Amino acid sequence: MTLINEHAPTAVHIGADELPWADIGDGSKLKVLQTREKEGLWIVENIFQAGYEVPTHKHTGPVWGYTASGAWKYKEYDYVNRAGSFLYEPAGSVHTLTCIEDNTQVWFQIYGSNLNLDADGNIESVVDAATVLAGYYMLIEAQGLPRPNVLVE
Amino acid sequence: MTLINEHAPTAVHIGADELPWADIGDGSKLKVLQTREKEGLWIVENIFQAGYEVPTHKHTGPVWGYTASGAWKYKEYDYVNRAGSFLYEPAGSVHTLTCIEDNTQVWFQIYGSNLNLDADGNIESVVDAATVLAGYYMLIEAQGLPRPNVLVE
Amino acid sequence: MTLINEHAPTAVHIGADELPWADIGDGSKLKVLQTREKEGLWIVENIFQAGYEVPTHKHTGPVWGYTASGAWKYKEYDYVNRAGSFLYEPAGSVHTLTCIEDNTQVWFQIYGSNLNLDADGNIESVVDAATVLAGYYMLIEAQGLPRPNVLVE
Amino acid sequence: MTLINEHAPTAVHIGADELPWADIGDGSKLKVLQTREKEGLWIVENIFQAGYEVPTHKHTGPVWGYTASGAWKYKEYDYVNRAGSFLYEPAGSVHTLTCIEDNTQVWFQIYGSNLNLDADGNIESVVDAATVLAGYYMLIEAQGLPRPNVLVE
Repeated sequence: MTLINEHAPTAVHIGADELPWADIGDGSKLKVLQTREKEGLWIVENIFQAGYEVPTHKHTGPVWGYTASGAWKYKEYDYVNRAGSFLYEPAGSVHTLTCIEDNTQVWFQIYGSNLNLDADGNIESVVDAATVLAGYYMLIEAQGLPRPNVLVE
Repeated sequence: MTLINEHAPTAVHIGADELPWADIGDGSKLKVLQTREKEGLWIVENIFQAGYEVPTHKHTGPVWGYTASGAWKYKEYDYVNRAGSFLYEPAGSVHTLTCIEDNTQVWFQIYGSNLNLDADGNIESVVDAATVLAGYYMLIEAQGLPRPNVLVE
Repeated sequence: MTLINEHAPTAVHIGADELPWADIGDGSKLKVLQTREKEGLWIVENIFQAGYEVPTHKHTGPVWGYTASGAWKYKEYDYVNRAGSFLYEPAGSVHTLTCIEDNTQVWFQIYGSNLNLDADGNIESVVDAATVLAGYYMLIEAQGLPRPNVLVE
Repeated sequence: MTLINEHAPTAVHIGADELPWADIGDGSKLKVLQTREKEGLWIVENIFQAGYEVPTHKHTGPVWGYTASGAWKYKEYDYVNRAGSFLYEPAGSVHTLTCIEDNTQVWFQIYGSNLNLDADGNIESVVDAATVLAGYYMLIEAQGLPRPNVLVE
């Protein structure tokens, strides 16, 4: 019995310089690496500058965050994500991201939707695989660049 | 090398009569079999009567439906789910369930949230693993029964 | 904000008579409904006859079983799956299926591989999304039928 | 309707210095951050030194790799993972890791099992959430340290 066959799927690599950064304000940046819309999966990379905030949101699926440099935190928790930090955000968790240091680089592997909430817990907007991909394309094309080659399945 | 070890997790069985049915109106019924809240997973079983409707909703994760008896459909699609039907609902899909025949029995394995939408596509309410479990407990206890032994992890 | 858009994915229905049964011996049957090979997902439906056995196997991902008729069990556990039974098999669980009653119908939603084990726990063979799909195609075509329209993604 | 409730799960952070490194030979290191054994999920962090190899293996579920520093590759593919590289390895993919530069740091989010293969494609051993956790505990305790506080669920 061999488990090797020529039709097996192969791994897909996206190098650091292969996709452009979208400017999301004040020098903070977004890159969308992969979406698997039917699964609800979206994987993004961010470079945040100090003071950048992501509005309070509730996750409908689990999320993992891997921080390569800088410092950021959720306002609701005390700990600070720094270079080498691992973060697990279960489905149902609610929090508000704020960046502490410039050039904070984080990968987020996200399942489901971000339900953005107002102060009373009402939904103001929703971000998911489809909307983040459309937004990234739009931002990049507005920067005069061609549509980037995100791993879309 | 043996792959058998005494600490391996074991399968969990819930027989047809082990959990009570919650009355959800006009003879339609709900049973919550399993929740894994941190994953966003909830598995329910329904018996619907003809005319029962589930409001228009958008899924934030994938869903599978297995129909054991009866007939039901989504208003947005032509096909009818009957005994032996398999249904795959990708994340992002939107639809409105309506039951056609009495005693329609369906299992739904659901990841993420149901975002219930009004006619303009605005979110009116959200159902997820935590809320469906709390609702099931409440209904069963209101029927004078003890809290049921759902597989909660 | 509307969450309805024309590009959203739609649900896929496979009715009871849309895919052919593959004969897997002594009147037992297999149907492959869906594979998502890159996720490791495979969903099958079986009709087992009394005495049918599936060799001892270990799962590398979680599995769910929904039984619509008949009776079957795992030799390692006492309970019997009957019409209306729900079964959750965590990753890592090991067991040996044996069918008790004729015309036992079960859906299995399977993530990962079945590692088939000998009596000492050594791996004898592996079944996964790719191999079950190839096997189903081969059996159906050997029965003189065209390649079935499995939901393959 | 508020989506904020006091019982919601919270995010779990593991800082760079919170878990000890296990020595896996010649200065290469392993840290197990999280296991969810019933899902088949294991998340590890590695520091590899140049020349370190991981035997040829086939994945039964999807895997993601996030590289923070250094350089490594799969022998089967040409591209090199460097700081900022994203890697997606679908279920079914087969490859052999080799490290090119010292102090190569990578996070791997792994679903399912690594089926380690010999040159003919036969399985020689299996690594999964349970075995990697047990191995990490054993290595750390052999280094005279207490059992580390891995996120085990």
